[in-house]
Amino acid sequence: MTGKVQKDDFILLYLSPGKKWLVRAKEKGSLHTHVGYLQFDLVIGKTYGSQLTTSLGRVLWLLKPTIEDFVMKGERRTQVVYPKDMGLIVVKTGVSPGSTVIEIGTGSGAMTTLLANLVRPSGRVYSYEMRSEFIEIAKRNLERAGLLDFVTLNLKDAREGLDVENADAAVIDVGDPWNVISPVWRALKGGAVISAITPTANQAEKLVIEMEKTFVDVQTVEILMRGLEARFGKTRPSSRMIGHTAYLTFGRKVFQESMLAND
Amino acid sequence: MTGKVQKDDFILLYLSPGKKWLVRAKEKGSLHTHVGYLQFDLVIGKTYGSQLTTSLGRVLWLLKPTIEDFVMKGERRTQVVYPKDMGLIVVKTGVSPGSTVIEIGTGSGAMTTLLANLVRPSGRVYSYEMRSEFIEIAKRNLERAGLLDFVTLNLKDAREGLDVENADAAVIDVGDPWNVISPVWRALKGGAVISAITPTANQAEKLVIEMEKTFVDVQTVEILMRGLEARFGKTRPSSRMIGHTAYLTFGRKVFQESMLAND
Amino acid sequence: MTGKVQKDDFILLYLSPGKKWLVRAKEKGSLHTHVGYLQFDLVIGKTYGSQLTTSLGRVLWLLKPTIEDFVMKGERRTQVVYPKDMGLIVVKTGVSPGSTVIEIGTGSGAMTTLLANLVRPSGRVYSYEMRSEFIEIAKRNLERAGLLDFVTLNLKDAREGLDVENADAAVIDVGDPWNVISPVWRALKGGAVISAITPTANQAEKLVIEMEKTFVDVQTVEILMRGLEARFGKTRPSSRMIGHTAYLTFGRKVFQESMLAND
Amino acid sequence: MTGKVQKDDFILLYLSPGKKWLVRAKEKGSLHTHVGYLQFDLVIGKTYGSQLTTSLGRVLWLLKPTIEDFVMKGERRTQVVYPKDMGLIVVKTGVSPGSTVIEIGTGSGAMTTLLANLVRPSGRVYSYEMRSEFIEIAKRNLERAGLLDFVTLNLKDAREGLDVENADAAVIDVGDPWNVISPVWRALKGGAVISAITPTANQAEKLVIEMEKTFVDVQTVEILMRGLEARFGKTRPSSRMIGHTAYLTFGRKVFQESMLAND
Repeated sequence: MTGKVQKDDFILLYLSPGKKWLVRAKEKGSLHTHVGYLQFDLVIGKTYGSQLTTSLGRVLWLLKPTIEDFVMKGERRTQVVYPKDMGLIVVKTGVSPGSTVIEIGTGSGAMTTLLANLVRPSGRVYSYEMRSEFIEIAKRNLERAGLLDFVTLNLKDAREGLDVENADAAVIDVGDPWNVISPVWRALKGGAVISAITPTANQAEKLVIEMEKTFVDVQTVEILMRGLEARFGKTRPSSRMIGHTAYLTFGRKVFQESMLAND
Repeated sequence: MTGKVQKDDFILLYLSPGKKWLVRAKEKGSLHTHVGYLQFDLVIGKTYGSQLTTSLGRVLWLLKPTIEDFVMKGERRTQVVYPKDMGLIVVKTGVSPGSTVIEIGTGSGAMTTLLANLVRPSGRVYSYEMRSEFIEIAKRNLERAGLLDFVTLNLKDAREGLDVENADAAVIDVGDPWNVISPVWRALKGGAVISAITPTANQAEKLVIEMEKTFVDVQTVEILMRGLEARFGKTRPSSRMIGHTAYLTFGRKVFQESMLAND
Repeated sequence: MTGKVQKDDFILLYLSPGKKWLVRAKEKGSLHTHVGYLQFDLVIGKTYGSQLTTSLGRVLWLLKPTIEDFVMKGERRTQVVYPKDMGLIVVKTGVSPGSTVIEIGTGSGAMTTLLANLVRPSGRVYSYEMRSEFIEIAKRNLERAGLLDFVTLNLKDAREGLDVENADAAVIDVGDPWNVISPVWRALKGGAVISAITPTANQAEKLVIEMEKTFVDVQTVEILMRGLEARFGKTRPSSRMIGHTAYLTFGRKVFQESMLAND
Repeated sequence: MTGKVQKDDFILLYLSPGKKWLVRAKEKGSLHTHVGYLQFDLVIGKTYGSQLTTSLGRVLWLLKPTIEDFVMKGERRTQVVYPKDMGLIVVKTGVSPGSTVIEIGTGSGAMTTLLANLVRPSGRVYSYEMRSEFIEIAKRNLERAGLLDFVTLNLKDAREGLDVENADAAVIDVGDPWNVISPVWRALKGGAVISAITPTANQAEKLVIEMEKTFVDVQTVEILMRGLEARFGKTRPSSRMIGHTAYLTFGRKVFQESMLAND
């Protein structure tokens, strides 16, 4: 890697924490923003981290998109999982190079993108989604992030069973997670970690009751993130914050005595 | 992988969310707990996820340790970074297979273990630590998790400069992070993400002022995690929680105009 | 008021934020603590705010108990409402001098004590409790705080109806608040504010559904309090905090059209 | 009190939790809203809690304003203290009927209004403000709430000393609270509770250092309030919340040995 922008690279143009553009560096054309436009031919060959100037004289910083940028700035029609929540899921499930991961509820493919980036090149994400339009959106988002090769997208109702065996971990993000606990359980290795994302307390309650039948170490948590505005002599927490995204429930697959009679 | 315990595997014996043992499955000997002892020879050959019974008739679940288990149950003499914080660092820095990562402040090697697990097999963690006793602890913890091959441990004061170039990301966990911003900046690729962990608001303030000279998208946040006790008809948040671990500061390396005169 | 301790005054002896004693200044006897004992005859006549020295040479500060001290350091057999929650209840219900206040669930009388202190001398708290042993505890706690004269304690099941009319506000702290909404509604003035304390999300849900039939501006919130350890150059939030006490639900009594046919 | 609206009463017209109007019930005229207008002559004589209908057929509920309504819906040019914070201040300072309370930083008089309502009729709030335009706003707000008689508004720099003695409590809401600690201390009774409101961690730090010289039980906290959207089978915390208003610092006045030589 040269550290310089090549034709067709995805680049991130940074104006401020709240204003960033994730675009493809084409040979022609330009990016139009409220602080002026920027011609793409000026970008190709530039070093990542350098500064660019718009037609109105404003500085944009040329950055290489991180996986978080791809995850958060993809095309989407559903609420995506937040980085604060994704992070804990990654640490607790242990998803890493070589992992076989099940995802129930592809949605726009945000979580899928993050997972695929972590399991590559030898692992794989098997993602299930019932709505074909979401499969298409997820496909485009994964392609853009260069990660489609590490994902199998299944247009299928997970409640009817999965086509995976011995998976290392599962991430569930559907409205009725309790209905897929059984097929997901069957697709996992013994001891594998499952995680599920539910917005309401009622869902978490129903889910935990179902999970406690075949999983141990079942825990539900919520993650709150608050900004700190660190400024000389005036440091204070941010005035506004996200109050709630979802509850996260985790558990580890176990076998009841009867299931292992011949072990 | 057979899904069965082999001699010398690390295993996790689970009694309850607050009581788990991470031990090596030896041919001889036994684990002594307050709920009875367990002979290791009964464990070898068992399927992960199955249940074991102690001498006092209590059930222990046989689990395969996740990376979180290795991270949180390693030998330690310092406060380790919490999963809630580690997770956000992983998502925001984009550490993943193949990454070259700098760590300043190895400590007991908890964060090092998590990072090494994510960059393997082709990436590498370059970790710096000034206290030799911590290098030794971290080495043992990494060895136990089978990840030492992916880490270079440096007994060196990072303020004097690093021996890395073109790194993809950096994680800083020392008391005076502002003093290593300059050497870390030099070791990173343009646009690379830096993250730093500071317990006090004063540290965060001082750090941000230093970082804003050569990084953009500088943000400080804190992560709060609260349990939800999900029980039928009685679901409520946990009575107690951790109030604070550390502030997390992130930024992306940029070049000032003058630094790139010949670009 | 002289600002000096008189015989039989309740005094607060302060050692540290976590170690305070609320005792009566008697002519004889002494307070025995882990930092030595203190003879009461040395205390009488002393100015509030002055320092005392125990037999072991440790300083105790002589303070006049605040209403919070009486509330939090009363005899108790149940969980009392926390100051963070009490405060919001006071502000939202508008309990103040002259108010007629209904309390359902006297418990140990902690909230009762706070309310009585605010409505005196012309207002009154009508408190209902089904368990006679709690009536006795509450009575002792109110007596100690000098507030029993402003409270009517009723040993009665509030679900069977109240003996109050035109009350200005109500505070409900029982396990099944939905069952007393109707009798409490009847006892309130139009527009009066009701507040209820429920530990679980399920209770809050059930309560809100019931309240929305005859109250408007129905809102449920939770209050979190976190300490800030402010120290020179080392300011940081407290490591531990209470994660949850209870949800607080508020509403204002209205009349449905049919109820006011002859208005 | 009749429970019916009288001419010139302040009334609260309630449409939804976020849309309420605090207006005076005049004999003529009307309230114009985005859901139609309402003629005031229809309101006089109506029972509080009853429903009204706008010209567009929408229901508005007729409520008696609580003290919180006066506090939050007064004329204002500054950020007012939030109910969550006011509540804790009330509980910890013990402000109640008969109290003599000092307020430094009247601002728009929101906190002043709450305090005056609690100390009446025999207590008094002595409030200091350096900017005459705020004195005028506060005066109008207090008059509207019918509480001006219980407040002395001082157009004066509190750093130059106060005209109060033996006060029971103090509330400080200025940018440099450390500069008024000494005059406030002198105006308080021994053992009296002080509270101060500071948005930044730096202010809290500086304040605590100053307070610890002449106060004990010094504690700084922050209060977070989050809504719970309680709905049948779909109960979840609110998506958005206020992340920060201010840190609250409390302490109790003590005398150092030397100050009480002749006690």
